[in-house]
Amino acid sequence: MFTVMLDFLKTYKSYDPAAKSLWEIAILYPGPKAIFLHRCANFLYSHRLFFLARLVAEISRCLTGIEIHPGATIGRRLVIDHGMGVVIGETAEVGDDCIIFHGVTLGGVKFDPVKRHPTVGNKVMIGAGAKVLGPVLLGDGCRIGANAVVFTDVAPHVVVLGPPSSVLDRK
Amino acid sequence: MFTVMLDFLKTYKSYDPAAKSLWEIAILYPGPKAIFLHRCANFLYSHRLFFLARLVAEISRCLTGIEIHPGATIGRRLVIDHGMGVVIGETAEVGDDCIIFHGVTLGGVKFDPVKRHPTVGNKVMIGAGAKVLGPVLLGDGCRIGANAVVFTDVAPHVVVLGPPSSVLDRK
Amino acid sequence: MFTVMLDFLKTYKSYDPAAKSLWEIAILYPGPKAIFLHRCANFLYSHRLFFLARLVAEISRCLTGIEIHPGATIGRRLVIDHGMGVVIGETAEVGDDCIIFHGVTLGGVKFDPVKRHPTVGNKVMIGAGAKVLGPVLLGDGCRIGANAVVFTDVAPHVVVLGPPSSVLDRK
Repeated sequence: MFTVMLDFLKTYKSYDPAAKSLWEIAILYPGPKAIFLHRCANFLYSHRLFFLARLVAEISRCLTGIEIHPGATIGRRLVIDHGMGVVIGETAEVGDDCIIFHGVTLGGVKFDPVKRHPTVGNKVMIGAGAKVLGPVLLGDGCRIGANAVVFTDVAPHVVVLGPPSSVLDRK
Repeated sequence: MFTVMLDFLKTYKSYDPAAKSLWEIAILYPGPKAIFLHRCANFLYSHRLFFLARLVAEISRCLTGIEIHPGATIGRRLVIDHGMGVVIGETAEVGDDCIIFHGVTLGGVKFDPVKRHPTVGNKVMIGAGAKVLGPVLLGDGCRIGANAVVFTDVAPHVVVLGPPSSVLDRK
Repeated sequence: MFTVMLDFLKTYKSYDPAAKSLWEIAILYPGPKAIFLHRCANFLYSHRLFFLARLVAEISRCLTGIEIHPGATIGRRLVIDHGMGVVIGETAEVGDDCIIFHGVTLGGVKFDPVKRHPTVGNKVMIGAGAKVLGPVLLGDGCRIGANAVVFTDVAPHVVVLGPPSSVLDRK
């Protein structure tokens, strides 16, 4: 258990050059808190204690700005960097060793209680503000650019670029 | 009054397949809290108690991550889903039965105290991260895609797609 | 000191036609709080009290939804409007008299401890949801549109438009 947590915190440190110590990450970073509270919420949810599960998720959202539905399946060593505004839906599945930045949505486009959120493979990186919508599959090792909107499956190791901006010259 | 609230919570439930009960929605969801506190703030604002109105709006923002200016006009049964990062400006008007997702801005592009925020019709859906800017009109039943940026009027029942993402293949 | 603060609050008021008084801005607006707490965090950081610095930054993030790394360099009279979801990285530098809206990221694309965040000139305006990534230079007086993604230098006084949305007509 302790090893798992240490492993997890070390992953954070290796990604964040601004982090000065493991203590800082464990106590002050929103990402690890959100993951820890999600593990609790998910445990309650799997025992059909839906109200309590949601209560834990809502407390986590208040503390961290990260909203993970208690029913979502989260793999190992998920790094959620900054995290404010992240929304992960009920039927979303995230693999191991992924990095998700703030403002990312793994959301749905349907109002029916079916599998309606994305399935994310291993070692996937999703940039700030990207929206991945519907029951799509993001292949292992793919990378999604900042503010990109993804509605279709993405093959493994592919890079999806966000929308291009244009320059308007001014007198 | 009770009927109005029940009606409102049922609307939420009908849209959110992950919601398990009306209690859960009333007590734990950020959207209904934000709307309720906005009704209070708007009442204070209309009686020219601007500081108190803003205080209530700021408490709501802290609790829910949703920022609605006390002066904004909000219609019936507005569903704000997830809600983190929503910003609704002072002169914005929202019709009945709309759905607004997290990260949506109904904002302005001017620094003058005129009508400078959007007017949203009835049954409009605005996707996550979309920014609607200026005193534009979103017609009844139109739908705005995730991360879309809208600067012009949108006709009723039209669908505006967010920006296209492109795939960059990787060796 | 008092003059500096008054000057700062007056700048906010001049930009926000919805603001009714300087008291309202000083006590209720998230932007001034975030800047004030960042000055504290930056002071601690420059004295190598990294944990305390980060603690102050994290408290600020909880209160305001604005995340400024204690190491970031922030110029005078920066207006952060609404602010929820703003992320400013460790090596970012922001000039004087800039306006940054909610959801803006001044972020990095590398995981090495080098200068990896943007340098923003004076009188720059960055619209809601825009992501400026990497050690790029935003020239004096340039304006970045809402939801734009910027990876390259921007010349002074240039306007960068966010991504275009397209209309899909519906039967």
